[in-house]
Amino acid sequence: MDKYDKNSKTSFAIGLTVSFEALQFGEVTRLYISPDLKDGETADRLVNLAKNKGIPLITNNAKIFKALSGKDNVMAIAEFVKKESELEPTLPHCLLVNPMNMGNLGTIIRSCLAFGIKDLGIVKPASDCFDPKVIRGSMGAFFRLRIHNFLSFEEYRKAYPEHHLYPFMLQAKKHLGEVEFQSPATLIFGNEAKGLDRSYLDVGEPILIKISSELDSLNLDNAVSIGLYELSKAI
Amino acid sequence: MDKYDKNSKTSFAIGLTVSFEALQFGEVTRLYISPDLKDGETADRLVNLAKNKGIPLITNNAKIFKALSGKDNVMAIAEFVKKESELEPTLPHCLLVNPMNMGNLGTIIRSCLAFGIKDLGIVKPASDCFDPKVIRGSMGAFFRLRIHNFLSFEEYRKAYPEHHLYPFMLQAKKHLGEVEFQSPATLIFGNEAKGLDRSYLDVGEPILIKISSELDSLNLDNAVSIGLYELSKAI
Repeated sequence: MDKYDKNSKTSFAIGLTVSFEALQFGEVTRLYISPDLKDGETADRLVNLAKNKGIPLITNNAKIFKALSGKDNVMAIAEFVKKESELEPTLPHCLLVNPMNMGNLGTIIRSCLAFGIKDLGIVKPASDCFDPKVIRGSMGAFFRLRIHNFLSFEEYRKAYPEHHLYPFMLQAKKHLGEVEFQSPATLIFGNEAKGLDRSYLDVGEPILIKISSELDSLNLDNAVSIGLYELSKAI
Repeated sequence: MDKYDKNSKTSFAIGLTVSFEALQFGEVTRLYISPDLKDGETADRLVNLAKNKGIPLITNNAKIFKALSGKDNVMAIAEFVKKESELEPTLPHCLLVNPMNMGNLGTIIRSCLAFGIKDLGIVKPASDCFDPKVIRGSMGAFFRLRIHNFLSFEEYRKAYPEHHLYPFMLQAKKHLGEVEFQSPATLIFGNEAKGLDRSYLDVGEPILIKISSELDSLNLDNAVSIGLYELSKAI
């Protein structure tokens, strides 16, 4: 396989840093090394790590670099097994309902790790969290999180009944900063274009990030990072 | 002109919403309407606004839509005059040192407006803040801000000597949340890849956004939005 197919069992971590994260925290099946890779500390560490783990090194496949690199100059690609994890039932969660933008999803994964929220739920339909664009956008943070897809919000709620739910909504009355988070907390965020629908007003304790009336809303990944930042201060 | 040229005196606001913002708050020289534009409330408001302001409407230029739309289905494009504004000397500022990613810059402009920080300084070299990608990424918030480019940090500092400076740095000791902002405040953020160099440790009161040791840094636009969010709570 030399192109990403969302139905396949593996995906790709593209670039040296991201491949390194995949090798450390993911299940890598093959490591592709570009013929243009110069010797250097990072390259050596990557190759040695792969060798130590008994992962096949492939150094003569220029085609895959052409197919997956885009405009960038990519030196390594790790093929890894796509798998979801159960979320930890006692730790805080971030739950994204129908996120549709891969760039946002990658950045959100990075922010989750930044603020120590290592459990991320995604309610479908949603961007494919295994897409190489998401993995790359996360700078490899993807491999350090537990990520699980759910078919519906109800499925999530039944799986984690102990969680205190905090949906972020423009219609909420209570401002972020005034809320005292109860543990374990789940911060819930809607889709980029539409946010969460009004039914979430009856779910847990809805939260508003107060912004200027001159603007409809924040960018999703900014809203999530602000929510996670406040949560991290509280826990 | 039917392609953006960074040396030209005009640029383009692409899309209905962004064109609408340009017409309201920018200096528009021409409004291009796609032959595919369907009648509707937004379209009517846009066309009426242009007519009221005496702005030429151009309805037969398919070429410009082809050149500027990319993959999207764009219905309106406003050509506007590029101009910078002096920043308000008594209000809080956001200062970006060498931002290089246009998507980030657009999102940061949106966040500035969201948190009521309407004065944005940019230290060059930097992304061209007039690029249509930036304008579009800002969802048109660009037209409601005062934005000024500076050739150096020193130039900024001399122009606004009253401002209290808060550089955001990984080497800072004091955490965001512990800082009491003095007015007028300037939040300073470095480049996406390198952040601010160590010389900024001697500037004002450096601030750290505390994140997990598992990660090098936050995405720039997330760091900025968190900083602006905290500042907006304090002022």
